[in-house]
Amino acid sequence: MAPAGAKKGILERLDGGEVVIGDGGFVFALEKRGYVKAGPWTPEAAAEHPEAVRQLHREFLRAGANVMQTFTFYASDDKLVNRGHTQRFTGQQINEAACNLAREVANEGDGLVAGGVSQTPSYLSCKSENDVKATFKKQLDVFVQKNVDFLIAEYFEHVEEAEWAVQVLKTTGKPVAATLCIGPGGDLNGVSPGDCAVKLVRAGAQIVGINCHFDPETCVKTVKMMKEGVEKAGLKAHYMCQPLAYHTPDCNCQGFIDLPEFPFSLEPRILTRWDMQKYAREAYNAGIRYIGGCCGFEPYHIRALAEELAPERGLLPAGSEKHGNWGSGLEMHTKPWVRARARRDYWEKLKPASGRPLCASMSNPDGWGVTKGHVDLMQQKEATSKEQLRVLFDKANKGH
Amino acid sequence: MAPAGAKKGILERLDGGEVVIGDGGFVFALEKRGYVKAGPWTPEAAAEHPEAVRQLHREFLRAGANVMQTFTFYASDDKLVNRGHTQRFTGQQINEAACNLAREVANEGDGLVAGGVSQTPSYLSCKSENDVKATFKKQLDVFVQKNVDFLIAEYFEHVEEAEWAVQVLKTTGKPVAATLCIGPGGDLNGVSPGDCAVKLVRAGAQIVGINCHFDPETCVKTVKMMKEGVEKAGLKAHYMCQPLAYHTPDCNCQGFIDLPEFPFSLEPRILTRWDMQKYAREAYNAGIRYIGGCCGFEPYHIRALAEELAPERGLLPAGSEKHGNWGSGLEMHTKPWVRARARRDYWEKLKPASGRPLCASMSNPDGWGVTKGHVDLMQQKEATSKEQLRVLFDKANKGH
Amino acid sequence: MAPAGAKKGILERLDGGEVVIGDGGFVFALEKRGYVKAGPWTPEAAAEHPEAVRQLHREFLRAGANVMQTFTFYASDDKLVNRGHTQRFTGQQINEAACNLAREVANEGDGLVAGGVSQTPSYLSCKSENDVKATFKKQLDVFVQKNVDFLIAEYFEHVEEAEWAVQVLKTTGKPVAATLCIGPGGDLNGVSPGDCAVKLVRAGAQIVGINCHFDPETCVKTVKMMKEGVEKAGLKAHYMCQPLAYHTPDCNCQGFIDLPEFPFSLEPRILTRWDMQKYAREAYNAGIRYIGGCCGFEPYHIRALAEELAPERGLLPAGSEKHGNWGSGLEMHTKPWVRARARRDYWEKLKPASGRPLCASMSNPDGWGVTKGHVDLMQQKEATSKEQLRVLFDKANKGH
Amino acid sequence: MAPAGAKKGILERLDGGEVVIGDGGFVFALEKRGYVKAGPWTPEAAAEHPEAVRQLHREFLRAGANVMQTFTFYASDDKLVNRGHTQRFTGQQINEAACNLAREVANEGDGLVAGGVSQTPSYLSCKSENDVKATFKKQLDVFVQKNVDFLIAEYFEHVEEAEWAVQVLKTTGKPVAATLCIGPGGDLNGVSPGDCAVKLVRAGAQIVGINCHFDPETCVKTVKMMKEGVEKAGLKAHYMCQPLAYHTPDCNCQGFIDLPEFPFSLEPRILTRWDMQKYAREAYNAGIRYIGGCCGFEPYHIRALAEELAPERGLLPAGSEKHGNWGSGLEMHTKPWVRARARRDYWEKLKPASGRPLCASMSNPDGWGVTKGHVDLMQQKEATSKEQLRVLFDKANKGH
Repeated sequence: MAPAGAKKGILERLDGGEVVIGDGGFVFALEKRGYVKAGPWTPEAAAEHPEAVRQLHREFLRAGANVMQTFTFYASDDKLVNRGHTQRFTGQQINEAACNLAREVANEGDGLVAGGVSQTPSYLSCKSENDVKATFKKQLDVFVQKNVDFLIAEYFEHVEEAEWAVQVLKTTGKPVAATLCIGPGGDLNGVSPGDCAVKLVRAGAQIVGINCHFDPETCVKTVKMMKEGVEKAGLKAHYMCQPLAYHTPDCNCQGFIDLPEFPFSLEPRILTRWDMQKYAREAYNAGIRYIGGCCGFEPYHIRALAEELAPERGLLPAGSEKHGNWGSGLEMHTKPWVRARARRDYWEKLKPASGRPLCASMSNPDGWGVTKGHVDLMQQKEATSKEQLRVLFDKANKGH
Repeated sequence: MAPAGAKKGILERLDGGEVVIGDGGFVFALEKRGYVKAGPWTPEAAAEHPEAVRQLHREFLRAGANVMQTFTFYASDDKLVNRGHTQRFTGQQINEAACNLAREVANEGDGLVAGGVSQTPSYLSCKSENDVKATFKKQLDVFVQKNVDFLIAEYFEHVEEAEWAVQVLKTTGKPVAATLCIGPGGDLNGVSPGDCAVKLVRAGAQIVGINCHFDPETCVKTVKMMKEGVEKAGLKAHYMCQPLAYHTPDCNCQGFIDLPEFPFSLEPRILTRWDMQKYAREAYNAGIRYIGGCCGFEPYHIRALAEELAPERGLLPAGSEKHGNWGSGLEMHTKPWVRARARRDYWEKLKPASGRPLCASMSNPDGWGVTKGHVDLMQQKEATSKEQLRVLFDKANKGH
Repeated sequence: MAPAGAKKGILERLDGGEVVIGDGGFVFALEKRGYVKAGPWTPEAAAEHPEAVRQLHREFLRAGANVMQTFTFYASDDKLVNRGHTQRFTGQQINEAACNLAREVANEGDGLVAGGVSQTPSYLSCKSENDVKATFKKQLDVFVQKNVDFLIAEYFEHVEEAEWAVQVLKTTGKPVAATLCIGPGGDLNGVSPGDCAVKLVRAGAQIVGINCHFDPETCVKTVKMMKEGVEKAGLKAHYMCQPLAYHTPDCNCQGFIDLPEFPFSLEPRILTRWDMQKYAREAYNAGIRYIGGCCGFEPYHIRALAEELAPERGLLPAGSEKHGNWGSGLEMHTKPWVRARARRDYWEKLKPASGRPLCASMSNPDGWGVTKGHVDLMQQKEATSKEQLRVLFDKANKGH
Repeated sequence: MAPAGAKKGILERLDGGEVVIGDGGFVFALEKRGYVKAGPWTPEAAAEHPEAVRQLHREFLRAGANVMQTFTFYASDDKLVNRGHTQRFTGQQINEAACNLAREVANEGDGLVAGGVSQTPSYLSCKSENDVKATFKKQLDVFVQKNVDFLIAEYFEHVEEAEWAVQVLKTTGKPVAATLCIGPGGDLNGVSPGDCAVKLVRAGAQIVGINCHFDPETCVKTVKMMKEGVEKAGLKAHYMCQPLAYHTPDCNCQGFIDLPEFPFSLEPRILTRWDMQKYAREAYNAGIRYIGGCCGFEPYHIRALAEELAPERGLLPAGSEKHGNWGSGLEMHTKPWVRARARRDYWEKLKPASGRPLCASMSNPDGWGVTKGHVDLMQQKEATSKEQLRVLFDKANKGH
């Protein structure tokens, strides 16, 4: 294994045309493993159960991920307090432990360590730009001290707050990526994806894109709109996509949070590995080169991305030693009709049943009153995204 | 933590009326984590990647499991060779490593170690009773040497082979459990669940039941038929259930293997934690006291069993520190309509959507020609199970 | 057109091995056309709007029906009163008008007129055999006076009442058919389909079978059970099937009445013409030779039966002048992909979508408490049908 | 009954703020009754089987329709020849018979007679404006001679041809309505609904709107876009909507023709009467005052429109004597759980199951290659409709 210092940085890789595979979603995966509480979603497990967090990092590395994001989501002190965390460990200790774990595993392979900040209660409660920026700054200190390889401002619903975050992160001199958790309808103020991307690039982000809240199809589509905006503005950037591992054709503008199944009955929506290969190919075809996942992504989902793009990347991930290409591991099965499944064509065409005859295929998102108000608000702003919201609206109200 | 010697054995617990929580399915869980290859399904990871296997044991223990099954499924030498395993480790080494890992984690809590044997290629290729028994004997040697706490003969489609296994396991003097992977239609020779159970008890099994191949609802129903048979015969036994974590209302008599989605597109069928609580309650009400899982069970599924039965067991599992009862962790959510989900009534009634409008809710199992032959064969045998097969048949051919 | 006297009677036809095509369901078809009120379901339209009833008879005749059932369902005086009918016409007038219309149209082609009686409030309120028989006798008088060609006792949930009806109808010397509205679980007293059929044949019915309450698949299956019973008893009969035109895989023992969609939202369940061809073939293969329909059958459904069995019958119905075989009428379509649908293979394999992404594929029948009581009641009676009820039970409670 | 002369004309009614109820789709309804052949879809039944056509007119009148459209769809001589019609009757005879039937039934109540023209093979094969107009002129002669009350140019996919039709129809001095069979994406040349409507009004149409090809929800939405266009242009018009009675959330820009189920397996998509009441209310709320139906509409669907708008219209249709409001006819049912369905709340909330567990809820439209080309073509034209097509596109390709 190469020493960390010898590794190419994130921008070197992307500038060189490489495909960078991201990792998957820690809070959801560790919730299922018993180390994160849904609701608070705080990452104290980094200090409390380091072996569990280390193991998940290792699985993503083995699956082909080039980036280990520090498990520091919602790890600012105020958030930890706000979420009712009984503090066996301080926020400082949690953040440091998370950085150590990410670095430890990154050093076991070709991994880079990324430190991340995300949207703050401060912004939502209308604090000043200075106050919000101070919050980011405080989180940043640990990342700088632990010398992460680059920084990600992720999971922002308002581009303005994301710009502030980018401005703060830029002060470190490290490469900065910025991803919003929005759909094609734009951010919650009605700023279109194209305009959002332009603002983020102008704020200094070298990599822009989308994470969380929507399924891969919607996220790739939104990143394409961002790319069109950036190119139309005569700017340049790299593009990044880290969607949900859940099918969400029925979401409204706030994504899967508003689906009635969030967060405890999303199982029927989980993407298969074949859905993931389709996503990887579509993201690649759209010009996206940093391709990873967010909530719902398990190690085998990341491996599917790496396998689909193995021709472009010139290598298979370590984890593929335990995975036959397109189901080829079934070739030895005793039943001929199971052997017949050992082929790409079979899995690509299969439309998997839910085994739930009393359940529908789409849901009616909650919180529609609020969203409706949001739509009305937007009617004075931007016709295009309004139309798209209306389409989502209609889709959600459809079908009886 | 109590030394192993101080723990109550499996029969002591069951005789005392305790509920024993089993663990979940290792091959499927580790396949998703990148350590088991689907197709061969062999457990060489016990030797190759002990940290991954140890971590999964820990997660099940933390989730409330009282039993650590050694990760030795399909670990006989002939099977390993047969499955094309390139042997970095001998079968002996793999089996020993697996026993060590189970014991190590069991000792971290209230866990018992169970060693298991399952159906053999020898039986299916019509070898003699002596030959088949020799195969079981060989696997047994490691378990005896490593002093597991009890033994499980599991995953048998023919009760005759299971009886032979029980007879061999009984020679050790350790408690023996025996589970078949059959549905209400009986074993593949048409022996009804009730008759199967009687045969297993007469062979010496103290615990009988069902594992794998069908969803919890079907498995509980089949164990009830076993219990009725045992009671009608004036015998006594403990009952055990370790079903799939997949909804399979559309299976034929060979279970989920024949579903077109097996094994790579089963995601939409995954049970939610609430489905699991329902299963635990129904199993308990049916008089089943050893309640666990098989393929598809993740740690949070096992925790749901332990939480549902916490009143009966008098304790919550360690993992519940990260889980609000019936979604209560959502009480602090910022959106009122998400807060409104923090209640039992909400999750019990929710019918989760698949997010897959192009997919149906049931599949037509493969291999129907063969099964049809099987049905014809059975017509001379047993009317009741024939009728049930016909119902499955009809269901599978229904719906266009 | 042949004079009525020259026509072969129903038994001549069936004895000669002919396939007899029945007509479809009048109350449901005329409800959609605006002449029958759902709830009361009474046939006063025969007197009030004869042109509408005559037209529907004509359409079924044109579609290939050999039998015109008089539109006299629920037309006994007490029922008309009971249903709150404001009597512009007396029951006598309605019954006579209905007989006249059936005869008029039957004479326009190869049609026979059948007069029918069905289950009575008298039986359900536990009146004596004599009282119940008197009710049938009164209805019979008009049929005798109008000289219908044969008689049908149909829509009985208790075989005992049906036997009484057959005994009364037999006094006329006309051929008698008897159909129950039960499923494979037997009548509401738990008498199995086989035993029911034996009782009806012994009471004098020359034709026995099933009508209404369940989909074609379930009804054909139940008639097969009746046929097995009759043959096992060393008796002889002709077999008849007149099912719903709705898919009902999720019914409990009382059929579609208990589905939440009954009677105003059954549209998504309507069978296609191709489903009907499948039904006709399966009924024929099961040895059924009187093949028709009940609620939901429109003229094109009856035509599909006649077209499927055209090779056996040696003729196409008049209505086929307006119907290309297996969609061949699409051959001239301008779009190539619509032309590609002009073939049997296409329509046989198509799994039609509902266009309702918010709706499930199965329902949970209402009235379960009551049915559950019924199941308990049956547990002392008949194991086989109990098991089948349990299967229906399970199916209905399944799926989340 | 009032003499025709005494009736208020269509414009008097609409100018006076009345709601006008249209009739339903003749070709689909008569196809099911056995008088129209799917594929050719020609109306020779007007001459061949006048009793069947008269009866359907009567049912729509009874259901509340104020307009009897002459059954002359595709009845131009060239079309009849083109469709392979073996001419027992000339086109002239068919057209005259159709006018007579419509007038006869209209005179039985408050009905107006509307004569209609629709898109021509001439236009699609690029004939000159003069040639196309000559075709319309020829069809018009019968309508003038038979003195229909007003004229409808309907079922046009290209607004240009519809404008030509309106110009021809205007020469008669009779009121002219014009409806396109397009969705929110605009006509097949990419002209937006708003622009289409402006062109039609400028050509002289007093009533504009949408018919056929899409479900009520989509059609109402498209008419709203037309209304916005007309109002933005400072013009005035009345609005009209005659959609399918099929749910089509999964259509591409050419509507239900491209759905795999067209035309022989659309049954699961049929709207319930409650869906129709919702449609009537939404159409009314959108400012549409001429509200009717097209393919799939049966008499009870039209009655549902009239019942929903009874408060606004001040009367119930004759057919409501056989229909309890919101299921009130069930109040007398013997089973308490069926009686419990006799209320609005029940039927409004019910999500009806398909009874087809092997079928999906949405389809992938055929002919995608062609449509894709069409989309590309549109990219140089109009961004808004392009975006909407892409949404439809995505929706259709979604879901596994």
